[in-house]
Amino acid sequence: MARIPCYPDAAAMKHTAVLLLSCPDRKGLVAAIANFLLAHGANILHADQHQDAELGLFLMRVEWDLRGFALPVTDFSAEFAPIAQANQMVWRLAESARKPRMAIFVSRSDHCLADLLYRFRSEELHCEIPVIISNHEHARRLADAYGIPFRHIEISSESRHDAEKLQLAVLSEADVDFIVLARYMQILSAQFTARYPQRIINIHHSFLPAFHGARPYHRAFERGVKLIGVTSHYVTDKLDEGPIIEQDVVRISHRDSLEDLIRKGADLEKIVLSRAVRWHLDNRVLVYANRTVVFD
Amino acid sequence: MARIPCYPDAAAMKHTAVLLLSCPDRKGLVAAIANFLLAHGANILHADQHQDAELGLFLMRVEWDLRGFALPVTDFSAEFAPIAQANQMVWRLAESARKPRMAIFVSRSDHCLADLLYRFRSEELHCEIPVIISNHEHARRLADAYGIPFRHIEISSESRHDAEKLQLAVLSEADVDFIVLARYMQILSAQFTARYPQRIINIHHSFLPAFHGARPYHRAFERGVKLIGVTSHYVTDKLDEGPIIEQDVVRISHRDSLEDLIRKGADLEKIVLSRAVRWHLDNRVLVYANRTVVFD
Amino acid sequence: MARIPCYPDAAAMKHTAVLLLSCPDRKGLVAAIANFLLAHGANILHADQHQDAELGLFLMRVEWDLRGFALPVTDFSAEFAPIAQANQMVWRLAESARKPRMAIFVSRSDHCLADLLYRFRSEELHCEIPVIISNHEHARRLADAYGIPFRHIEISSESRHDAEKLQLAVLSEADVDFIVLARYMQILSAQFTARYPQRIINIHHSFLPAFHGARPYHRAFERGVKLIGVTSHYVTDKLDEGPIIEQDVVRISHRDSLEDLIRKGADLEKIVLSRAVRWHLDNRVLVYANRTVVFD
Amino acid sequence: MARIPCYPDAAAMKHTAVLLLSCPDRKGLVAAIANFLLAHGANILHADQHQDAELGLFLMRVEWDLRGFALPVTDFSAEFAPIAQANQMVWRLAESARKPRMAIFVSRSDHCLADLLYRFRSEELHCEIPVIISNHEHARRLADAYGIPFRHIEISSESRHDAEKLQLAVLSEADVDFIVLARYMQILSAQFTARYPQRIINIHHSFLPAFHGARPYHRAFERGVKLIGVTSHYVTDKLDEGPIIEQDVVRISHRDSLEDLIRKGADLEKIVLSRAVRWHLDNRVLVYANRTVVFD
Repeated sequence: MARIPCYPDAAAMKHTAVLLLSCPDRKGLVAAIANFLLAHGANILHADQHQDAELGLFLMRVEWDLRGFALPVTDFSAEFAPIAQANQMVWRLAESARKPRMAIFVSRSDHCLADLLYRFRSEELHCEIPVIISNHEHARRLADAYGIPFRHIEISSESRHDAEKLQLAVLSEADVDFIVLARYMQILSAQFTARYPQRIINIHHSFLPAFHGARPYHRAFERGVKLIGVTSHYVTDKLDEGPIIEQDVVRISHRDSLEDLIRKGADLEKIVLSRAVRWHLDNRVLVYANRTVVFD
Repeated sequence: MARIPCYPDAAAMKHTAVLLLSCPDRKGLVAAIANFLLAHGANILHADQHQDAELGLFLMRVEWDLRGFALPVTDFSAEFAPIAQANQMVWRLAESARKPRMAIFVSRSDHCLADLLYRFRSEELHCEIPVIISNHEHARRLADAYGIPFRHIEISSESRHDAEKLQLAVLSEADVDFIVLARYMQILSAQFTARYPQRIINIHHSFLPAFHGARPYHRAFERGVKLIGVTSHYVTDKLDEGPIIEQDVVRISHRDSLEDLIRKGADLEKIVLSRAVRWHLDNRVLVYANRTVVFD
Repeated sequence: MARIPCYPDAAAMKHTAVLLLSCPDRKGLVAAIANFLLAHGANILHADQHQDAELGLFLMRVEWDLRGFALPVTDFSAEFAPIAQANQMVWRLAESARKPRMAIFVSRSDHCLADLLYRFRSEELHCEIPVIISNHEHARRLADAYGIPFRHIEISSESRHDAEKLQLAVLSEADVDFIVLARYMQILSAQFTARYPQRIINIHHSFLPAFHGARPYHRAFERGVKLIGVTSHYVTDKLDEGPIIEQDVVRISHRDSLEDLIRKGADLEKIVLSRAVRWHLDNRVLVYANRTVVFD
Repeated sequence: MARIPCYPDAAAMKHTAVLLLSCPDRKGLVAAIANFLLAHGANILHADQHQDAELGLFLMRVEWDLRGFALPVTDFSAEFAPIAQANQMVWRLAESARKPRMAIFVSRSDHCLADLLYRFRSEELHCEIPVIISNHEHARRLADAYGIPFRHIEISSESRHDAEKLQLAVLSEADVDFIVLARYMQILSAQFTARYPQRIINIHHSFLPAFHGARPYHRAFERGVKLIGVTSHYVTDKLDEGPIIEQDVVRISHRDSLEDLIRKGADLEKIVLSRAVRWHLDNRVLVYANRTVVFD
């Protein structure tokens, strides 16, 4: 299926830059950044900041129109360096014109994959999807329908190490920027996750930290909770303990069977994962202290 | 402050009976109960049932108008016994005309207490409140304002045993049917909870099973969750593991400080606890397998 | 794409019957129905009832296992007639084994169509889809991908009458039971809607009765509301005034552009429409007094 | 009852200033404001801005610590005037140390009043309440319990004009900054509302614009909606059409009677009105084009 934009205005994309930064809080940071951008003719479209008073941190996201911005993006780093160094900033710059390359990992359940692909095709998600990787053949037909390269890489407890090597090779060859685990039911090794820090997004089918680990819907059903939730987070080497990007819940009752929980949860997984992916693509997520700031 | 009904229609109370029962599921249960009630002229107002297919359980709540019901409530037990025994029913009968006697336990935070008392005064909660017990003096002024007897019973780690003995004596003297822990920050002993099985309602300020135990808002803040929740449950001898009656959540963001979490959570605690208490008073809650059915 | 069940347990379908009925409320209705079913050996799986005290109406949904039910479904009507007539019941019987035939109407926006087709293919929706009808060519590729017959029927203000005649002929030929308007942006005539009473399900992109009619997101944006909603309802000859099946809302803020509203709303439309369709397929929806009872 | 802070940290109040402004959008606004504040030694605690691209508007809220701020607040206006005039800013400055004076209007239903008074007493709301005005005697006992002056001003269709004159005199004498209509069931005249522009906060018991006007719960019940809502808004001379500050909804079902709607709605009214009042007190609400920006 060819990509056809559903959102006409989105097709006429603005060409913007986003600067995301964090540094120790002090007086004059806003002025320093605003003056720097103004000096180069930036027309600021959005600016948002957050102070963590307890940790003494300043975090900011600023987006401006690149039309009329006098500084070539390639020169930004050199020009901005003095301010960044003087204030011990950790920062990154992203251009809206460059589409990040997103790999999707999936196991048998393909509802999140189908949802992401539909959003991709309708241009809600501004990215490229160079490859889908799965430990099952099941998702191949969806990949084919959307014309995305599909790689089936089997995994067993003995083959895990080799399988991850192969996965990394495929990702490298496809020049992937970040990975979305769209109900991928295998645990990634610490070696693997270290290769993509804050660049692997998972959807866990519970309201973390409740029911971390395996079979969360079964355990929620057993416990008799009145709401079930899902959590999208960056993957770290600690299972289900990475920085949370988004969570949501849905009400259940005694009338709901385990199958109902799984079905209601599936709808929530699609929504929550797609939000997390879109915010990541929009450079809205800043991680610190194992938490996230999601600039809206 | 005198009690003035806010809900005029509620003042003109219907005189009804509620039968709550559970038993092994089998054919003919609905017919047996419906025929029994019909034989005595019951006009059924509400009937609701639930089958737990996995456990093979049948659970039912049926409410009927006592006007025109030919069987005196005092004779119900004897007449219903054959059906109950033949079907191994666990059951109880409640009359709307009899107001249950509810004790409230509270520590320093009195928002849930204030909320319950306002609902009591406006006749949203159909009960008597013969006593408020606290390990602090703080809540006395609220008790006084509403004209409810207040007992300050101090508790320290050494005095816990004696304090509970005193609490039990006060409860017994006040002829209490059930207890609401309205942000009562002491842990009740297994001896105490055994005296009021499925008759102690707690409000825990987290989305259980996440953050059970102490300081849940602090830990939610640390973990960086995107929603906070509260849970009302029956108290058992396992801390925060009793059957859940109701839960709800509210969205937070990185902009919310710990104080914001506590404030937002407090609003939720009032709502969720008041729902659980009202459902308990309306005989809508049936416990089985450490879960609840809440008949709506 | 071939249909592959995602929910293994759903594939091993129970063979059940559902009786939906409404009648004037009186004593003995539950007993009469329970006795009738018991006499024929029915094992009741779910029973739910509702009384509208104001209108004096009794409404019921009862589902039983057809294994062990002694009465052939073809004989049900004749056997049940005496009870139905004596109590002035309006009733219908549905068998889970028979899959209803659902037509989908769609215009340009195809997110609801894509969502329904995915749920259909994964056997979440137990129905047949004999035809998709659209006034645009846009959705043909989705229909093709799922192997569903697609009919493009153009509509202009002059051709409306003829177009509806053609639509009705297609529906008749496809032996359609009910119609889902999955963001179909044409208004159906009273003649058309009269042919499918309580059998046309629409999704309206506002929280009805707010913003009925055209361009609801634009008007919600103009009005500065803080939540947007969507409504699924049965279509009558009064635009956007039919019985509401389901509604839901999502929070927005001043940061959300009109495009954000449209995007957030689209996610809600999919969820709410799919709930309404599933409840209709499960025979959970009973209409009276331009309202619905949704038995859960 | 004496005021006792529930939130210890809130008692140790920071002394801050908040600047709220709107103006035509142009380059350099952020830099101009940041430089001005920095020049006087401001330590910015929060800064948030919003651009309305369609209307070409820039809106900002900035809060800074007054400790270390070199400019006396009394001199702010004169110093800031050149920037404000050059950029056609509409602006206002508020100091956290000054508690706004809030009048509460109420009719018979006093749940919102009770809620506001409890929040006031527990220092969640940083304001003074010099007077409560009602067209009934009903709320006097609550006013007395909290030690707030209470004025009973009767209103009939003939006395409306005189009653409003008396109300305005009482408000003037009490030096009131803004008014909260806590379920005040009388319509204010255009003359009255013109005296307190964007300074009268109402709670309407529907999800506006649905069910504006009288008896919204009754009409929601009649319409068969699946959610009910409430709306807090600034009062203008157009009934229920002023700028919306906050809205929220709660789910209902066919099991809910009209009394249930009223009861569920009442809980929502308290929450939504208290949010609107707190945001107003925190100077977070900026009105433009009959909409609000609520800076969080």
